[in-house]
Amino acid sequence: MEFAEFFDKQATVEAALEQYIPRPNQFEHVVYEAMKYSLLAGGKRFRPILLLMSYQAFASDFEKALPSACAVEFVHTYSLIHDDLPAMDNDDLRRGQPTCHKQYDEAVALLAGDALFAEAFNLITSHQQGQSEILVQIIRDLAEATGAGGMVGGQVLDVCLTGQDKVSAEELFLIHSHKTGKLIVAAAKMGARLAGATGSQLKAIDDYAFNLGMAFQITDDILDEVGDSDLLGKTAGSDRRQKKITYPSIFGLEKAKSKAAASSRKAIESLDGIKGESLAKLAQFVIRRNS
Amino acid sequence: MEFAEFFDKQATVEAALEQYIPRPNQFEHVVYEAMKYSLLAGGKRFRPILLLMSYQAFASDFEKALPSACAVEFVHTYSLIHDDLPAMDNDDLRRGQPTCHKQYDEAVALLAGDALFAEAFNLITSHQQGQSEILVQIIRDLAEATGAGGMVGGQVLDVCLTGQDKVSAEELFLIHSHKTGKLIVAAAKMGARLAGATGSQLKAIDDYAFNLGMAFQITDDILDEVGDSDLLGKTAGSDRRQKKITYPSIFGLEKAKSKAAASSRKAIESLDGIKGESLAKLAQFVIRRNS
Repeated sequence: MEFAEFFDKQATVEAALEQYIPRPNQFEHVVYEAMKYSLLAGGKRFRPILLLMSYQAFASDFEKALPSACAVEFVHTYSLIHDDLPAMDNDDLRRGQPTCHKQYDEAVALLAGDALFAEAFNLITSHQQGQSEILVQIIRDLAEATGAGGMVGGQVLDVCLTGQDKVSAEELFLIHSHKTGKLIVAAAKMGARLAGATGSQLKAIDDYAFNLGMAFQITDDILDEVGDSDLLGKTAGSDRRQKKITYPSIFGLEKAKSKAAASSRKAIESLDGIKGESLAKLAQFVIRRNS
Repeated sequence: MEFAEFFDKQATVEAALEQYIPRPNQFEHVVYEAMKYSLLAGGKRFRPILLLMSYQAFASDFEKALPSACAVEFVHTYSLIHDDLPAMDNDDLRRGQPTCHKQYDEAVALLAGDALFAEAFNLITSHQQGQSEILVQIIRDLAEATGAGGMVGGQVLDVCLTGQDKVSAEELFLIHSHKTGKLIVAAAKMGARLAGATGSQLKAIDDYAFNLGMAFQITDDILDEVGDSDLLGKTAGSDRRQKKITYPSIFGLEKAKSKAAASSRKAIESLDGIKGESLAKLAQFVIRRNS
């Protein structure tokens, strides 16, 4: 699927990350290198792009939201670094490269994750322009989405249930709606808030992003099952071998595909009354991508 | 040394922590229990008390700053949980109790730390009253103090240098001024800002807290060397056995004591022009405590 705007914004985010990457001011240490290693390892930049497109649904000067967009990518990168640690998923490769703790060591990876999380809030409070009331709101969006009732909650459930034989569809939903869903919803709301959205507009973006996140996650699971290992940057089928709970493993491949498509449609329907052409395209794109 | 106000505030903080401790709203999981386990393990509550006393130097209604005071204790607790992990200090005991990863497991401890960090920002943005401009500033204080140029920077240097034979006084200073110093300074500034302090008042609080932090850390090192294991909740002399770099190990016990006293005096001198009776007492208290 052609979606030039996605790749344009990807390049913009990539350049902004280079600009905002934490740099030593007082003393140099290896964690700066480790943060940069993981941040610039070539992700899709889906969350920051979503934040920018969500901003654009309400205002045109999306570049203004780049500090917050990068902050969300800092948070996503921190979560991947911690997720890959031996105590968690114990992954050696991420996007075809050694994971942070393999490239450095466990202590450095742990601290690089911790630092990226702190630097995300530092980036917003130091570089994001906007009314202070709105900044406080987007910081709360981000903190709520990443705390015990958000991303961490999903991660702990994932860790607890991985390897178990019987996992229900409801548990799978709980994992993903928290582990990946909450941060995706937060990114979309942050962009919308920064562009001045309120009330029913925010509600629409919230609904949109919830369904987008579902479509995104189900497609991730499908790609892991059937995708091209080279494009994915990891070995296809690794979820199954690790006995990860996935949508294809619970529903089968075909039903998983139709669920992804239904979530994508619901996302687009949520945009009723909003100037969200890019967001609609994004909802189609996430289920048609091959990596 | 008698310092009833310290223990009064300790009780106030303890009650506020019980109030603000993260609670499940959607689904219960073990990380909530782990956060509570570590948060309520009976710390001195030095940082939140400092924040409250710093507030009191400029305004009387210090209870208003309790959400931020608790947030700083969330951050401190998160840093202890991660510091104790096998990849870092690999400590089994903290304050006489099993460390978080010993009581639960490594994944839960890692995630409990991550969640506490997020919940600190959530607490400030959800419960701290005050002008939004000031809230953004105190969030920046906290984020800067805990990022790569702050607490994490000190931790990585500590990890890299522990066990080495030759560590300079300058390196020791770099470790402590970042690992413990930055968060202590942030706590003091946050309290002052919330009470309306600006300009030279903030500068005075910054100087005070920097020196207070030095006095606090040097005294910590001395207590580890000569203190009462029962009062400390850990085995005295453990730093030496772990080849930790400490003030007594570099300067000798007597010179370390005089350095702590000098820092305490400097802290008090910094308060010139500020209504800081409690802060002055605190600077005396930190070098006279026995745990």
